[in-house]
Amino acid sequence: MINKDSNSGHTETSPLGGWEGLGSKGLEVCLTPALLPLYKVEDYIVVVIDIFRATSSICYGIENGAEAIIPVAQVEECAAYREKGFNYLLAAERDGAVVSGFDFGNSPFSYTKEKVAGKTVVLTTTNGTHALHLSIKAKRIVIGSFLNITTLCNWLKTQDENILLVCAGWKNNFNLEDTLFAGAVVEQLKERQYKTDDPAIAANDLYQLAKDDLTGYLKKTSHSERLKQLGIEEDIAFCLNVDIATSIPVLDGDRLVKMEV
Amino acid sequence: MINKDSNSGHTETSPLGGWEGLGSKGLEVCLTPALLPLYKVEDYIVVVIDIFRATSSICYGIENGAEAIIPVAQVEECAAYREKGFNYLLAAERDGAVVSGFDFGNSPFSYTKEKVAGKTVVLTTTNGTHALHLSIKAKRIVIGSFLNITTLCNWLKTQDENILLVCAGWKNNFNLEDTLFAGAVVEQLKERQYKTDDPAIAANDLYQLAKDDLTGYLKKTSHSERLKQLGIEEDIAFCLNVDIATSIPVLDGDRLVKMEV
Repeated sequence: MINKDSNSGHTETSPLGGWEGLGSKGLEVCLTPALLPLYKVEDYIVVVIDIFRATSSICYGIENGAEAIIPVAQVEECAAYREKGFNYLLAAERDGAVVSGFDFGNSPFSYTKEKVAGKTVVLTTTNGTHALHLSIKAKRIVIGSFLNITTLCNWLKTQDENILLVCAGWKNNFNLEDTLFAGAVVEQLKERQYKTDDPAIAANDLYQLAKDDLTGYLKKTSHSERLKQLGIEEDIAFCLNVDIATSIPVLDGDRLVKMEV
Repeated sequence: MINKDSNSGHTETSPLGGWEGLGSKGLEVCLTPALLPLYKVEDYIVVVIDIFRATSSICYGIENGAEAIIPVAQVEECAAYREKGFNYLLAAERDGAVVSGFDFGNSPFSYTKEKVAGKTVVLTTTNGTHALHLSIKAKRIVIGSFLNITTLCNWLKTQDENILLVCAGWKNNFNLEDTLFAGAVVEQLKERQYKTDDPAIAANDLYQLAKDDLTGYLKKTSHSERLKQLGIEEDIAFCLNVDIATSIPVLDGDRLVKMEV
């Protein structure tokens, strides 16, 4: 196939540097937010990934007609919206649990049509909103999850830009579920012949191993054990649903809204 | 098998936290030096890994009778040893090449018996010595490579300690070769029933994919492409030799020396 993405100005800034000058756009995976300073994010479209559960819930909420979801870094910022008198839903999660005093956390079952249609949600989470704020200088920030993966990938294919898949991870470290999703995106974008870096290769290889039974594969992770202790196994199962949504949440100013495509 | 490693005091400090209280020592993988601040290194024996090529060359040099290898962070520190009048060999590598004015860099072929037996080498490299210095508070720091993997793992099995495998990576980011080696260590230590974290699971799964043809697998990496451009393919092939050494370099003060076992 013809590669339409030659003459990228970006490639010099790749931290791994293996594919300078090879004439196509880059598809890279940032395995944890702690590694984001290694990337010049303004050269990329960033996909933020926090499969269990923030970005899955954001995709589900936008799909279900939430007017906007405002990601904020701190619990205090989230609480401050209460004083502003807006009719916002306030969602705060830390360490996998709803913060006391808030309407809800980041369980996808809190983002149903009945609960969020027409409403604005202010959301802070342990990992996902952190990754989003660190990516703020990106060309564009979109939200990915298994729920909207094919719609997301089809849109990415129409963009003539470098793509950085940012895994929110767990407290700044690597986790398997976000990496597997990154690998699934790499899989769908293979036909476009992006230049991939080592993390993207690893993510895709792990996805190949896991794809026939994502749930079974993830059961062996430490994160799965922790989430099980939190009693959110139904949430986990829900977050592994593939293509039940066709919306792409995109950051517009300080709010995530449904992308018009 | 009976697990002899119960009642670890360490587990509370695990950044992933999935295996607290499960009653055995931890075997964790730090995928890049940039993630080291997430670990309380004083709770671990650290294995420093920089397969292409620093830790492979260190293992080979110690095996070949080098009296000591002194890892230093900066090229200037390395150069300063010249003025001290010692009969040291000075080795400096940056971005894969020998720094001009130095005896040699980190090619394993510079660490033969003829060149290093009875001598002390002062070494600075892009990634490997960086990872080592960041790990300095560890209970013990040892050096790993495919050259000495079985000897290293057999020794680790005799230690009743948490183990952190620190991948030097490439300029603070993830690379495949160091991760694969970490996965190979996880494989050899499986019988000891350590508690592993997500990076260790991922590293081991990638190793399973690659183990039958490490060279072929690594050819698809960006790093391999870069190293090929540097003309060091013979070095790469050499660094993938398994078990040609039976020495374990260990940090003693500021010097890496042969461990007495």
